[in-house]
Amino acid sequence: MSSDLKKYLKEVDAVLVSSWGNITYLTGFSGFSQTERECLLIVTRNKQYLITDGRYSEAVKEQVSNFEVIDIGVSKFLNKEHSNILKKIRIKSLGIEENDLTVSEYRSIKRIVGKTINIDLSKLRVKKRKDEIENIKKACKIGDLAFLFIIKQLRAGISERHVLDSLETFVNSKGADISFKPIVAFGKNSSIPHHVSGQTKLKQNQIVLLDFGVKVNNYCSDMSRTVFFGTADEKFRRMHQAVLAAQSKAIEYIQKFYCSSERSESRSQFSTNSNSKLLARDIDKVARGYIAKQKYPNIIHSVGHGIGVEVHEPPHLSPHSKDKIEEGMVFSVEPGIYIEGYRRNKD
Amino acid sequence: MSSDLKKYLKEVDAVLVSSWGNITYLTGFSGFSQTERECLLIVTRNKQYLITDGRYSEAVKEQVSNFEVIDIGVSKFLNKEHSNILKKIRIKSLGIEENDLTVSEYRSIKRIVGKTINIDLSKLRVKKRKDEIENIKKACKIGDLAFLFIIKQLRAGISERHVLDSLETFVNSKGADISFKPIVAFGKNSSIPHHVSGQTKLKQNQIVLLDFGVKVNNYCSDMSRTVFFGTADEKFRRMHQAVLAAQSKAIEYIQKFYCSSERSESRSQFSTNSNSKLLARDIDKVARGYIAKQKYPNIIHSVGHGIGVEVHEPPHLSPHSKDKIEEGMVFSVEPGIYIEGYRRNKD
Repeated sequence: MSSDLKKYLKEVDAVLVSSWGNITYLTGFSGFSQTERECLLIVTRNKQYLITDGRYSEAVKEQVSNFEVIDIGVSKFLNKEHSNILKKIRIKSLGIEENDLTVSEYRSIKRIVGKTINIDLSKLRVKKRKDEIENIKKACKIGDLAFLFIIKQLRAGISERHVLDSLETFVNSKGADISFKPIVAFGKNSSIPHHVSGQTKLKQNQIVLLDFGVKVNNYCSDMSRTVFFGTADEKFRRMHQAVLAAQSKAIEYIQKFYCSSERSESRSQFSTNSNSKLLARDIDKVARGYIAKQKYPNIIHSVGHGIGVEVHEPPHLSPHSKDKIEEGMVFSVEPGIYIEGYRRNKD
Repeated sequence: MSSDLKKYLKEVDAVLVSSWGNITYLTGFSGFSQTERECLLIVTRNKQYLITDGRYSEAVKEQVSNFEVIDIGVSKFLNKEHSNILKKIRIKSLGIEENDLTVSEYRSIKRIVGKTINIDLSKLRVKKRKDEIENIKKACKIGDLAFLFIIKQLRAGISERHVLDSLETFVNSKGADISFKPIVAFGKNSSIPHHVSGQTKLKQNQIVLLDFGVKVNNYCSDMSRTVFFGTADEKFRRMHQAVLAAQSKAIEYIQKFYCSSERSESRSQFSTNSNSKLLARDIDKVARGYIAKQKYPNIIHSVGHGIGVEVHEPPHLSPHSKDKIEEGMVFSVEPGIYIEGYRRNKD
């Protein structure tokens, strides 16, 4: 049995794991769709079941050894046949991921199992093992190489979309995957953090926003960089300095709670090393506060987030976060300044 | 107001649209994450609200004209601030997508709105307009070109992963996107419909399974082809013939209910043209029955599915489907034979 889930099994007879991230973490198999329900795990005190359909069962039986695979054939999840499995296991109480399970699925389950309890599995993966950190580091390194590669490709007339495609091809050529659709934004598009890259062409003296990540052995990196194509004016230099200072101050703040001086080569990837009372929201506050003090607009997103099997995981470094930072957590520190419609004067 | 949602507003004061597919369909904006909650729509009888966070609001305000954009800043969805919006609109009953909304989100909503009703929006997009069909056709055409391109690339020693990357690069070079991570499977891997392509190298006299799709202006295609690299033996030829015959018989069955003789160039993409009593499960039965009659294993997936903004949409052509096929629907007909561990004798 997965020792990770043991503590939850004191409260309930079984745990139903439905979220893609937790399924990937517990099984090591990342082939299921992230947008459709193609797998469920049921973990009891004695057994672990992986329920999937005919499209995956052969692969899963071969690759996942710690779960008994149940193939539901062509049928839909949580239908009649599926219910039979839950009935057969004879569980009276079931832990469910309420932040993942849909209302329809919940209603189906309630017809079979008397008692369900919301099990917060968000902390399951929050502290990373050494091998997980190694994979994240590998992903970061390929990300660094991709950044250097892309910087050299920039020239007037190139389209956002072309840069995006080159980035993806480069990452694939290193035997890795992208961890999310890269964001490439030129000029005024760079004020939209999640801009959808298109046919906009790069001009001299424009901002270039790059936001992309790499995936190695199921583990993600996430990197955001803003560079200036041409000669940056004073306004941009000040903005860039302010973001850099905000990030440095947040990192220094973390380091006060931080024993080892080891620091990832990829500047914004960090893992803490001490049992401290470092709060995620306080890190957010340091960076956010600095940007505000310099009279720039409030950062329009959280200052950072955990990273692992998914690009966005706990801990959340945002103003209302209740997360504590502990040893082994890996997260980003990425403040930003976004000014709607901003572009260089001579543009 | 979106006329598509009008009929639902007879039953409830407002409809909450949460699924990525329906949000993309109603707004035309496809930039939101398919795996994280980044947008919600609230449609009342008089107004339409699009609720998103600071990462998207600028882009959405520019690109989506038929919704009033509400920016919730850095906060999480369906938290306090969010609830204020629902309170402000003063709705007593709310239609929700129970097959998309999570249990946690549902609990948040129930604290504010007395009555919620499950609104089945699955039929919202099921009948395609002409412009939608045009986009799907464009996606199919690029898919056809990609198939021809890839076939020419096949040679002994090439890896599944290399073929996958080339496929993606080719589709991007045509100004399109892939509609899902392509599946490339060589030899015995081809018996796993959703195989995760890896470093397996192609050898002489092996099966090659290709399953991929293209996306043009938010509309998807989906194509599955099995070819033989080398000289196919009798066993493979018979299997291939059986699959082809099963598909043809299903298509002929559809054509009996089908007035116009127009047929998409991409063989398995279809749209019906008559108001008939054609049942999705009966099409499944024709293809499935034929494969079974030839003594091959039962098809381990549904025979077909609708396609549009998402790769898998209603109608579902599966044994227990209750879907009726009507004019304007676009769906695939894709039977298959999968024999675990099957490879050519001389392999």
